[in-house]
Amino acid sequence: MLLIMPMKNETILISHGAGGKQTRKLIEQIILKYFSDKILLPLPDAATVNITGVEICFTTDSYVVNPVFFPGGDIGKLAICGTINDLAVSGAIPLFISCAMIIEEGFSFLMFEKILKSMSKIAKKTGVRIVTGDTKVVDRGKGDGIFITTTGIGLKFKNVQLGKQFIKKGDAVIIGGVPGMHELSIICARENIKFKTGLKSDCAPLHQMIEEIFGVSKKIRFMRDPTRGGVSAVLNEIVSGADFGIEIYEDKIPLTKQVRSLCEILGFDILNLASEGNVVIIADSKDANSIVRTMRKNPAGKNASVIGFVTDEFCGKVILKTKFGSSRFIEMPAAGQLPRIC
Amino acid sequence: MLLIMPMKNETILISHGAGGKQTRKLIEQIILKYFSDKILLPLPDAATVNITGVEICFTTDSYVVNPVFFPGGDIGKLAICGTINDLAVSGAIPLFISCAMIIEEGFSFLMFEKILKSMSKIAKKTGVRIVTGDTKVVDRGKGDGIFITTTGIGLKFKNVQLGKQFIKKGDAVIIGGVPGMHELSIICARENIKFKTGLKSDCAPLHQMIEEIFGVSKKIRFMRDPTRGGVSAVLNEIVSGADFGIEIYEDKIPLTKQVRSLCEILGFDILNLASEGNVVIIADSKDANSIVRTMRKNPAGKNASVIGFVTDEFCGKVILKTKFGSSRFIEMPAAGQLPRIC
Repeated sequence: MLLIMPMKNETILISHGAGGKQTRKLIEQIILKYFSDKILLPLPDAATVNITGVEICFTTDSYVVNPVFFPGGDIGKLAICGTINDLAVSGAIPLFISCAMIIEEGFSFLMFEKILKSMSKIAKKTGVRIVTGDTKVVDRGKGDGIFITTTGIGLKFKNVQLGKQFIKKGDAVIIGGVPGMHELSIICARENIKFKTGLKSDCAPLHQMIEEIFGVSKKIRFMRDPTRGGVSAVLNEIVSGADFGIEIYEDKIPLTKQVRSLCEILGFDILNLASEGNVVIIADSKDANSIVRTMRKNPAGKNASVIGFVTDEFCGKVILKTKFGSSRFIEMPAAGQLPRIC
Repeated sequence: MLLIMPMKNETILISHGAGGKQTRKLIEQIILKYFSDKILLPLPDAATVNITGVEICFTTDSYVVNPVFFPGGDIGKLAICGTINDLAVSGAIPLFISCAMIIEEGFSFLMFEKILKSMSKIAKKTGVRIVTGDTKVVDRGKGDGIFITTTGIGLKFKNVQLGKQFIKKGDAVIIGGVPGMHELSIICARENIKFKTGLKSDCAPLHQMIEEIFGVSKKIRFMRDPTRGGVSAVLNEIVSGADFGIEIYEDKIPLTKQVRSLCEILGFDILNLASEGNVVIIADSKDANSIVRTMRKNPAGKNASVIGFVTDEFCGKVILKTKFGSSRFIEMPAAGQLPRIC
């Protein structure tokens, strides 16, 4: 067994929160030992719970992004969009959000208000209601500006059942747009790299586009937004323990010249980078074209593409066919390429 | 107007998170400017939302208590009990909890597991299910061990309507037990004050006791757990803007010798200190005795007492009749007496 239990004197590392192998190890070997509620498994973005016959999705995320303002958004927009998207990819209509803030003493009121304004703007635009919250202040040097935890409640779509157990050989793998835009924008903001062309985070709410997709296909099997760990983490989670593999084609992955050059310069694998306005969909290949057409009508899906298929070869593996005709395995990232991107 | 908008160069202070006047100012003047959803008002512990006819309570709190282990509990127990209690005092049966953790790099796995174990223990004991979560890790020096945000969903009791608008003159003010035990235990843990008698936090889930109370009285008007800002903050929030006052009697407030001496030595006002297993109830005075009897059957309510009444004098004010026959106003605490108690 590759994953080893922590030693008594081991401590938690940045990589445990980066969305890759170490995060999985932390969740599976430590957290699930105590929180072993069956509805938690197999680690969906949101839990589905039944309250007197009403099926509700319930999701939470803490946002610790650094810096809190970045091209294309800020921690507030990120938190609301992230929660909306987690509900949407779970097959639910986002309804209500709670917002708990941990603020470091000395954080400026102006920045605080700017963040609240941005949350309120997205909430109004999407019709999602921020209905309850909490504010804590911690001593200077015991926090980092502001951390925001948003929790969302959504109403499950009737007749939509998503899960990796529904995936069939031959299904298409669809992506909503150029991967990694969010993580690249954080890298640029953090390292003060500026581009004339203005690269920015793809951070956006996806629930409307996703609702439209459910309208054109009854054979959506699985959806996930590729945040921490990127497309690689999502696809590897899908094939983990499955009796199928996934094959994707390098030349089908939507890319811009700018993103390609930036990845080449910085030595990043685009498939490992986080998006915040992107989605990976597995659906019956017969419906793939109509799904892609529907997605392309939305700004968030204008580069939507079929990037591969579910195969009966290489079970449990993700394979990339390169532009040069060769093949390589895409692994679960060992750690996120950059910490604190969300 | 006493409360003044912050200046452009003002920053957030510890007192803004302490549950007193400054917290109220932050919420009313800044946060509600953006999160102006009407169901947020008048700042209940939980929002009540209606999903296809089902009334659900929804509450969130970040826990940043320092130290994370203290006599009578730890940050994990505190988070689960706090969320259960916020739902219970809102008139809901606690059902599901989400748990988002922000961990500082270098936090020990052993302590982490101890906290998870404690959360899991309380969840199992109470039948509340921890169904989803999130884990983020921040750099060393950018957090403080561990922060936990728990969000809870509860099913609203039918025929229970709570709110300060239902309070009537003559109603009784009931308290569940000795106030301030939680904050005093944190003070002792932080200052390394040790007592032979073993003072500890009252941190406990109250939902069962509260359910029993709803069983004996249909005239419960209002409930709140006196956490940050203590009993003073709860009572002042109740009378704020109301056409009634509240009169409480010093000799009716349940106290232990130990708590009284500790407050005298440290110069604390017991009414300003936080509890985590206590409840303030306003109910029809005719039902007061049966409510108190029911509470006393529970370990968390064994010192339950009627401590005062709603009056038509001194509207908008809380008055304490002292043991010596004199009277004084109880004010909303300017700030919590100690920061980071929850």
